[in-house]
Amino acid sequence: MNFSSKLIQDAVEQFAKLPGIGRKSAMRLALHLLKMDKDEVRSFGEAFIDLRDKINYCQECHNISDMDICELCSNPSREFSTLCVVEDIRDVIAIENTHQFKGKYHVLGGIISPMDGVGPTDLNIESLVTKVAKGNIKEIIMALSTTMEGDTTNFYIFKRLKEYDIKMSVIARGISVGDELEYADEVTLGRSIVNRTPYENSLA
Amino acid sequence: MNFSSKLIQDAVEQFAKLPGIGRKSAMRLALHLLKMDKDEVRSFGEAFIDLRDKINYCQECHNISDMDICELCSNPSREFSTLCVVEDIRDVIAIENTHQFKGKYHVLGGIISPMDGVGPTDLNIESLVTKVAKGNIKEIIMALSTTMEGDTTNFYIFKRLKEYDIKMSVIARGISVGDELEYADEVTLGRSIVNRTPYENSLA
Repeated sequence: MNFSSKLIQDAVEQFAKLPGIGRKSAMRLALHLLKMDKDEVRSFGEAFIDLRDKINYCQECHNISDMDICELCSNPSREFSTLCVVEDIRDVIAIENTHQFKGKYHVLGGIISPMDGVGPTDLNIESLVTKVAKGNIKEIIMALSTTMEGDTTNFYIFKRLKEYDIKMSVIARGISVGDELEYADEVTLGRSIVNRTPYENSLA
Repeated sequence: MNFSSKLIQDAVEQFAKLPGIGRKSAMRLALHLLKMDKDEVRSFGEAFIDLRDKINYCQECHNISDMDICELCSNPSREFSTLCVVEDIRDVIAIENTHQFKGKYHVLGGIISPMDGVGPTDLNIESLVTKVAKGNIKEIIMALSTTMEGDTTNFYIFKRLKEYDIKMSVIARGISVGDELEYADEVTLGRSIVNRTPYENSLA
């Protein structure tokens, strides 16, 4: 594209850096900004700069938090003996929305993915081992994506923690609620049979 | 969503203001920023603030331009007697990419759309009439979207300019190159028959 203005070119290029946004969408977004108020656009840009500059992580669970210890970690009514290991804040929000988990979280900040150059040392795994070594944790629930990378990370953490006397589980993989069997893929259907649950437990 | 940090909440809300970006995508984008370099995020945010603060429009054609008169308008090899009327800079770029138009542009900055509260006075229509009244323009090509709003704008401009001795045309509506007839809608197919072109002209 041949832009008539460096300003619009810059804005388009910046938008196009984001995942899932191509140059045509980026142009549409840049033109949208031009129709917004100057002050609104200023808050728009500053929100991202502030986010990156001032971001803080909970020292306990490594979740994004404005305080040094996040609300979930400092809440005395949460069970401290159960840890749910997740990839990032999105998963914390998703699990919190289910209201099914009353323990605490441990946010890895990613999953092991050699293709993207992410190894175990790039993640918050050492601090998980340290927490477990202190002896207060009874159960660890691995709630990672059901992908190759998620499985690899599960396996790595399982190996690192197997010397400790804790229960380690992985969230159930099976047929989504509301799905029809005939459209389920074979692997999922196979797992759902191997890991079948007692009838009483299937009633939510 | 219950965010654990005001910073991330702000960033998500700002992204979600953009057209076509929901709160889940906004969260994904905000987390992407957190993985970027601080300096990169700073240029990211500042590009938008700069765009809005320093944007300049060509005084001739109203296209976005870093100079007071844009490159296209100041180019002496472009025919000044033919004006192509378009909605915004995206259309200028699209038409320039075809290499089929050698005249100048007039950017309206939108189209008449009562539903969105955009009337004729919100657009650069007066300056178009002034240009035509000066008497140097011989032909006006209306290149607006083939929607109800585009048609309304065409009609309004046609009425405003009919007292002047100029040719006014609208870009051809017909079957897209490469399309099969059976999948074309009736209106388009009907127009393509009514406005059929001599065989010689159909060879691009």
